[in-house]
Amino acid sequence: MLIAFMSDFGIEDEYVGVCKLVIKEINPLVSIIDITHTVYPFDVLTGAWMLYNITEHLPPNTVVLPIVDPGVGSERKGIIVETERNITFVGPDNGIIHPSADKLGITGVWEVIPKEEQVSPTFHGRDIFAPTAARLSRGMSPNELNTKPLKTMIKEINIFGMQTREGKSIGEVMHIDHFGTIRTNIPFSWLRNTNITENGEPIKVKTDASEFNLRYHKTFTEATAGETFILPDSFGWISIARNRGRADKRLKLRPHDTIIIEIS
Amino acid sequence: MLIAFMSDFGIEDEYVGVCKLVIKEINPLVSIIDITHTVYPFDVLTGAWMLYNITEHLPPNTVVLPIVDPGVGSERKGIIVETERNITFVGPDNGIIHPSADKLGITGVWEVIPKEEQVSPTFHGRDIFAPTAARLSRGMSPNELNTKPLKTMIKEINIFGMQTREGKSIGEVMHIDHFGTIRTNIPFSWLRNTNITENGEPIKVKTDASEFNLRYHKTFTEATAGETFILPDSFGWISIARNRGRADKRLKLRPHDTIIIEIS
Amino acid sequence: MLIAFMSDFGIEDEYVGVCKLVIKEINPLVSIIDITHTVYPFDVLTGAWMLYNITEHLPPNTVVLPIVDPGVGSERKGIIVETERNITFVGPDNGIIHPSADKLGITGVWEVIPKEEQVSPTFHGRDIFAPTAARLSRGMSPNELNTKPLKTMIKEINIFGMQTREGKSIGEVMHIDHFGTIRTNIPFSWLRNTNITENGEPIKVKTDASEFNLRYHKTFTEATAGETFILPDSFGWISIARNRGRADKRLKLRPHDTIIIEIS
Repeated sequence: MLIAFMSDFGIEDEYVGVCKLVIKEINPLVSIIDITHTVYPFDVLTGAWMLYNITEHLPPNTVVLPIVDPGVGSERKGIIVETERNITFVGPDNGIIHPSADKLGITGVWEVIPKEEQVSPTFHGRDIFAPTAARLSRGMSPNELNTKPLKTMIKEINIFGMQTREGKSIGEVMHIDHFGTIRTNIPFSWLRNTNITENGEPIKVKTDASEFNLRYHKTFTEATAGETFILPDSFGWISIARNRGRADKRLKLRPHDTIIIEIS
Repeated sequence: MLIAFMSDFGIEDEYVGVCKLVIKEINPLVSIIDITHTVYPFDVLTGAWMLYNITEHLPPNTVVLPIVDPGVGSERKGIIVETERNITFVGPDNGIIHPSADKLGITGVWEVIPKEEQVSPTFHGRDIFAPTAARLSRGMSPNELNTKPLKTMIKEINIFGMQTREGKSIGEVMHIDHFGTIRTNIPFSWLRNTNITENGEPIKVKTDASEFNLRYHKTFTEATAGETFILPDSFGWISIARNRGRADKRLKLRPHDTIIIEIS
Repeated sequence: MLIAFMSDFGIEDEYVGVCKLVIKEINPLVSIIDITHTVYPFDVLTGAWMLYNITEHLPPNTVVLPIVDPGVGSERKGIIVETERNITFVGPDNGIIHPSADKLGITGVWEVIPKEEQVSPTFHGRDIFAPTAARLSRGMSPNELNTKPLKTMIKEINIFGMQTREGKSIGEVMHIDHFGTIRTNIPFSWLRNTNITENGEPIKVKTDASEFNLRYHKTFTEATAGETFILPDSFGWISIARNRGRADKRLKLRPHDTIIIEIS
């Protein structure tokens, strides 16, 4: 079995490693795949969006462990969510699981009841969610664990912040990637529906501070050297890239800034 | 079997990867878990402290490979240390193994004798320690390897730098984590023994440059937005965090700075 | 079987993780070893050099997946390259595979023919190369996949940029490592052949902006505190390190800067 692990723990500390040791003690044979551990600190929205992005590539029978948990130690619940294709999520009930599980089709929800001894108030990832994921990856059902079934829905989060008016889409910078590419939550399908999909077609991008006339290209190699351009990313969203450079520096955009895309 | 791998090699280069290839050639079935590879360069003290932190979560039969090795190529020995719970450490004899092995209970120590051909003077991690760890993970005993038993103790290091006077504890910044939280080597047990464990109790923090009046909170969610506060971490130490911000920027503290915590 | 995965995807995003999920769905039992994922963006030359560096440590039967792919979506081919020791490479035909495969001895080359549906124009790593690597790791031969044999050579790249004149070697900064050490593509064998291998021997280093008189040391421990010095690295190249400091800051050098090493 496979555990897909995502968090905002970063890679500087022993936080990710200790969770994996906890998992391996319970299920020595499980494979652990890191989605990423550098989700922006406490950024449940971006984490949920990233998890949504990889959802269709989750192999059947995977246990997903997505831990971005600013509410750790508060009243927020820990949950197990089962979906179609036998994917099982374990994590905080703060919305991070919702878009991905909802896309797959939720078939059951349980609350995880912590055993109070041995639980740190600040690290449920290590003390509650990792061991629960490990037990699920061994084939245990949520009902065999210290849980209770929930009839209420899990906490929802809206990663589709886009508003569309005539020829105009208002969205949000969701992530700046390793290449400096600006990743948004504006679906590429919106642009495709406008028929702006010829190489080089002009598109206007407005930020809070400025306005840019960019062109549409399908790949980096269609852009000229140094050109900043509109690009469909490989997850179904519109992104803004710069050929051999960083688009984020050029447009002075940061995560969660508003971005408006206009076609004439 | 499991190899738990920690180093200061960073993730920018092929250093960690090549060690894993060496391990996998010798033991294709072993699982390798990364504790972290971004220990501050050459920082044996912080590495030893991090390894100590995860010690209780090491599964039985684990081989631990902690490589922070500023003395590589010098006369410092390479060692194998066996402890209770059948944990085996392999690495340089510079103190990095000591606090963790000592906590578990040392049951045997061997010197690793390198075969001189094929050993780089600057990368014993790849050429000596990784292959030794791989062989141990296959169930070979230290006596079957190119070793000699040592009767002398291994090099010790003191991660508990704290001095305590009346109502006052002097410690050290050990790490700044991904969230900007300041992690110290002052045990939380000291604070708990003073009975300062009610939410919101005032605590004074002195740095070389300044002085701060902070409050004690058990979790991030007890703090107000932007508040910098004293927090018990999940490994038994006192830390200083900032709710939705970086405490290290607020207190202008860096690794190995002195920190004094006072209660009235 | 083992897949050795290298890329310039970075660790900030879900890019590496989603490739691994794709691999694990096809071959759940394969081990995936990360060489590094922080090759400089689009830097095929440095990627090829790093892959060359770890070549001799690749276990037999490994599938190598090196993805630095600025030409993704263009006419550049995807290829499979088989070599001696039963190592199989899968990736773009842009030179990244060449130095490593050439060192091993190429025994066969195939073009990978993408099935057009389901292939993103910007992420062949996920959609073409990862699934191909997974199938090869299950023991399928290139001929069983959607490929055609190539008689022409693969694209070559020259990682040995060095020019040698009398007592002088002109090379290039290939990488700055986690310790701030300057890694070059000047082979240490050149220096060894000059007989400059005694501890402390003087060597001149010229950069575009400046000139430095450094000494040769075999290890960090031979250098004095703060000393910047010439060091043979553990992969056969000349590097410039600083004892307990960053050589790159001292010499103000960046990747792909020219560097000249002179002996008197």
